[in-house]
Amino acid sequence: MEKIETYRFTVEPFHVDFTGHLFLGVLGNHLLNAAGHHSHNRGWGIDHLNEAHYTWVLSRLSIELSETPAQYEHVEVETWVESVMKLFTERNFLIRNADDGRIYGYARSVWAMIDTATRQPSNLLALKDGDILHYILSAEEKPCPIAKHGRVRVTSTEPQREVPTFYSDVDINGHINSVKYIEHILDLFPREQFEQHRLHRFEIAYKAESYLGDALFFFTEEVDGEHHIEIRKHVGQPEKPAGETVVQAKVIWK
Amino acid sequence: MEKIETYRFTVEPFHVDFTGHLFLGVLGNHLLNAAGHHSHNRGWGIDHLNEAHYTWVLSRLSIELSETPAQYEHVEVETWVESVMKLFTERNFLIRNADDGRIYGYARSVWAMIDTATRQPSNLLALKDGDILHYILSAEEKPCPIAKHGRVRVTSTEPQREVPTFYSDVDINGHINSVKYIEHILDLFPREQFEQHRLHRFEIAYKAESYLGDALFFFTEEVDGEHHIEIRKHVGQPEKPAGETVVQAKVIWK
Repeated sequence: MEKIETYRFTVEPFHVDFTGHLFLGVLGNHLLNAAGHHSHNRGWGIDHLNEAHYTWVLSRLSIELSETPAQYEHVEVETWVESVMKLFTERNFLIRNADDGRIYGYARSVWAMIDTATRQPSNLLALKDGDILHYILSAEEKPCPIAKHGRVRVTSTEPQREVPTFYSDVDINGHINSVKYIEHILDLFPREQFEQHRLHRFEIAYKAESYLGDALFFFTEEVDGEHHIEIRKHVGQPEKPAGETVVQAKVIWK
Repeated sequence: MEKIETYRFTVEPFHVDFTGHLFLGVLGNHLLNAAGHHSHNRGWGIDHLNEAHYTWVLSRLSIELSETPAQYEHVEVETWVESVMKLFTERNFLIRNADDGRIYGYARSVWAMIDTATRQPSNLLALKDGDILHYILSAEEKPCPIAKHGRVRVTSTEPQREVPTFYSDVDINGHINSVKYIEHILDLFPREQFEQHRLHRFEIAYKAESYLGDALFFFTEEVDGEHHIEIRKHVGQPEKPAGETVVQAKVIWK
């Protein structure tokens, strides 16, 4: 079995922003689909795993683009596994134009395998007799020339925005959808930011789940020209902007 | 050229709600894509029309489902033109399972052709020597067995919710995206509504454009068991819940 899976899509009219370029949340969705196909076709899909009471959980995603795909462009995503540790696996992505091969950018992600009964991470190397090791493509064999995930530091105690969550925010597991967080984070920026800058790099780390009806508080801080964001949740109706950290993110503009 | 265009898609994991069924907004997006392919392949696509300074504007959309497609199901959308009047054309949709052919439901839509310079509707019958008449499939030739668009009546003066608009709400024209209105409308309903009922019919009429930064006020009223919704906008920062009607909608549950 090929170690690389290639996933193709076309940039649809309703999937571009007011500048005519693909929404980052939609790109994130396509990357997750590509990951899903890669693991499904190698016997590691959620459909196989759920029967055995395991499921993949996305822990981190970092996307770095030198160009953002534009409306009607044909895009090809390559995805492969760079490494497997006991509790985590690193999956990378290459994003390029399907017609002329020019590279839009790369992405890195980190996943854990959760036992759905205990909610504890599982030992990836022990599952299926270490079968996952057959699919590794090392950084030497297939480079992914963007930095690994960085640290997010937000000390602010005053939220920039409070966002209630509704029906459309929630996925089949009842959790706030990982793509919706990306939308809400980019919605923190004013129109001028998108007119005058290009989104160069976006990092997100999923720390805890939030649920339909939770109020999300967005704390932000500019650190050396980078925008750091921390989302904390308040369960049910909020009285004070406190609570557990759900997501940390970083946005870098050019 | 065939009068019917068939468009296929698979229900993706991130496109289903917490009950495991396709979000109606995503279905709406697929219907619009199907319409786009149908008109493009017949020389009436936005790409052809924009050069001549015309563009399609969606005026109404009504979707009625006896079953909502579920995760991983393969769906086929047929679309065709039922009638053409001077200023409007009616386009219908049939939505079915691609594997066993069972019908999920139907949709009806009404479109106008706008002159992008004057923003006035154009005479469809006069464009391209009446070429559009070649593509009509009458209700006798190809039935669409759901009711036409109804009337929405909202007398309430107290909004149920105020929704600010941000970057992710806006399409390439700078307008609030027609699919996003559908999301915001369904977000008015509590979790229990989706647990205890099935969305049977959804109607939406687009009356005016709203823009990034507008505040949307959702007025609602229950009329004979149907939920009527009117969205009025307030430009810029709102002081009072008044303003032009942007959207009218109706939701019927079973």
